[in-house]
Amino acid sequence: MSIATAVTRLLGIRHPVLLAPMDLIADARLTGAVSAAGGLGILGGGYGDEAWLRRELDLLQHSGTHLGVGFITWSLAKSPHLLDLALERKPAAVMLSFGDPAPFSEKIKRASSVLICQVQSLAGAKEALSCGADILVAQGTEGGGHGASRGLFSLVPEIVDALDTKIPVVAAGGIADGRGLAAALALGASGVLMGTRFYATQESAGREGAKAKIQAATGDETLRSIVFDISRRNVWPAPFSGRCLRNAHLDRWYGKEVELLRHLDEEAERYGNARAAGDFDIAAVIAGECVGLIQDIPTAQEIVERIVREASVILENGRQQIHLDPD
Amino acid sequence: MSIATAVTRLLGIRHPVLLAPMDLIADARLTGAVSAAGGLGILGGGYGDEAWLRRELDLLQHSGTHLGVGFITWSLAKSPHLLDLALERKPAAVMLSFGDPAPFSEKIKRASSVLICQVQSLAGAKEALSCGADILVAQGTEGGGHGASRGLFSLVPEIVDALDTKIPVVAAGGIADGRGLAAALALGASGVLMGTRFYATQESAGREGAKAKIQAATGDETLRSIVFDISRRNVWPAPFSGRCLRNAHLDRWYGKEVELLRHLDEEAERYGNARAAGDFDIAAVIAGECVGLIQDIPTAQEIVERIVREASVILENGRQQIHLDPD
Repeated sequence: MSIATAVTRLLGIRHPVLLAPMDLIADARLTGAVSAAGGLGILGGGYGDEAWLRRELDLLQHSGTHLGVGFITWSLAKSPHLLDLALERKPAAVMLSFGDPAPFSEKIKRASSVLICQVQSLAGAKEALSCGADILVAQGTEGGGHGASRGLFSLVPEIVDALDTKIPVVAAGGIADGRGLAAALALGASGVLMGTRFYATQESAGREGAKAKIQAATGDETLRSIVFDISRRNVWPAPFSGRCLRNAHLDRWYGKEVELLRHLDEEAERYGNARAAGDFDIAAVIAGECVGLIQDIPTAQEIVERIVREASVILENGRQQIHLDPD
Repeated sequence: MSIATAVTRLLGIRHPVLLAPMDLIADARLTGAVSAAGGLGILGGGYGDEAWLRRELDLLQHSGTHLGVGFITWSLAKSPHLLDLALERKPAAVMLSFGDPAPFSEKIKRASSVLICQVQSLAGAKEALSCGADILVAQGTEGGGHGASRGLFSLVPEIVDALDTKIPVVAAGGIADGRGLAAALALGASGVLMGTRFYATQESAGREGAKAKIQAATGDETLRSIVFDISRRNVWPAPFSGRCLRNAHLDRWYGKEVELLRHLDEEAERYGNARAAGDFDIAAVIAGECVGLIQDIPTAQEIVERIVREASVILENGRQQIHLDPD
């Protein structure tokens, strides 16, 4: 069984399920697993560690994976040669998030890769469209990691309505199961992109301690802030902030960011040590509000198949709620 | 045509569409119109203006409307006799939002009214359930007016999963059309509650200037803050804040709330005058992110019928996206 949409047709994949290119987490192993399961794995190009990117791309090329590569756009602008490195491998798609895609779009399209642009607002959608995006990812504030303030529920249909063309929209942020996929399709999307749900899989490069925290948390236990960005000396341009699980460090500094900056030398060191040690009372587990829907750590394949199965049941049965009038 | 759910059965209504009890906006006229269209009108009990409540209830009783009455719970706690005033009219339902429903739940249930509790988190849902709520409204941060921080997309299924019992969940915040209703049903909800969409109707008590602003705005043009609460000297208890359209006043004071407090005497007077005059460059138009989906000012009946019609088409056609494997 599969769910066919404009996105599956455009990307040549079986299921409309995309892996968010999470920095460090979405490595060759997880990317390959999602693609092998019939979705599209998108390698997390992150902040531009060339050695890492080259190694992971080599691994994927070796296995012949149908894949995407994702970049943080404002970071890619500092190391634009990394895009060439990716395009040499002829990825099915390149995904750009968080910044102006204009300087890169022509090169991506000339390489015959599908250009996926992730946006967080109607204005962002229009900008991406003018740059020639082939697919738009509408990312809601519910999502883990970096994003902005708009909720997914009205963002998806508003972007769908704004596109005169037939550019497909993929929903991201807050989605972890087949209900989310079915709801995204109802809102006019042609697929979903998931980060947190794939973080909590067997193949993900996340630490076991972080996966356990995701499994245990409720959706009430995340916050969007710039605390972890400050703590790792990596503050993003506006309007982006980052959602992560609440922990002792976040509770201590949330709303006291200026004070945190005043103690940055010692706090950044403490934070760096905690990251290295996997101490998640201090280091952030970067995850979205859908953590409350995550109760297990299965394989990526099980996730993809489960989501499609659950969504299919909902799509199949939806019509039973309609009652025609007797008159 | 109608869409039948646990909510329509429990409330004895034709369509799973509820009116948010917006302070001042959801008066007898709008409440009556939504109920007459087959949804459930919920009168906006607001901050407890007894003369207003008595007059609007009289109007509704006169027309024999099947109705609900909504209260701001922390405000009702200051004037608990208003609940008696409402219960005397034997409303089909009483809706409590923003505060502890415990002091009121028994009286509502003894009067055989359905107890609807609006919540903004999993924790709130559990609290309302322990108070005997018959229906939970899960309100996402997308919504206009007061609310909290969680996005609707994962809040709905997480609350559905947390309820061992068969208490139906209604989705609120960010919904303005049939796509939203279909998506809410896919997420496990049994209906929707809408404020902003009904604000922009012929029957709503909102000013024409405010309705025009809602019609013109995109979903990018709202902010959640406490600026308008400060400006009208009505700051709510945590964790609640209020979403409204951006305007000159909000842009001036957003993020500068302490400074606003320091100028409160003159600013509150300016704000009060602007409200009285309908000057929406200063006074807030209280509305949610779904404004970007609102392009007209039809009757409430047209809204209810359109939403059910649109959702029915989506529910009817969803199965066409499923492809069975040839093997």
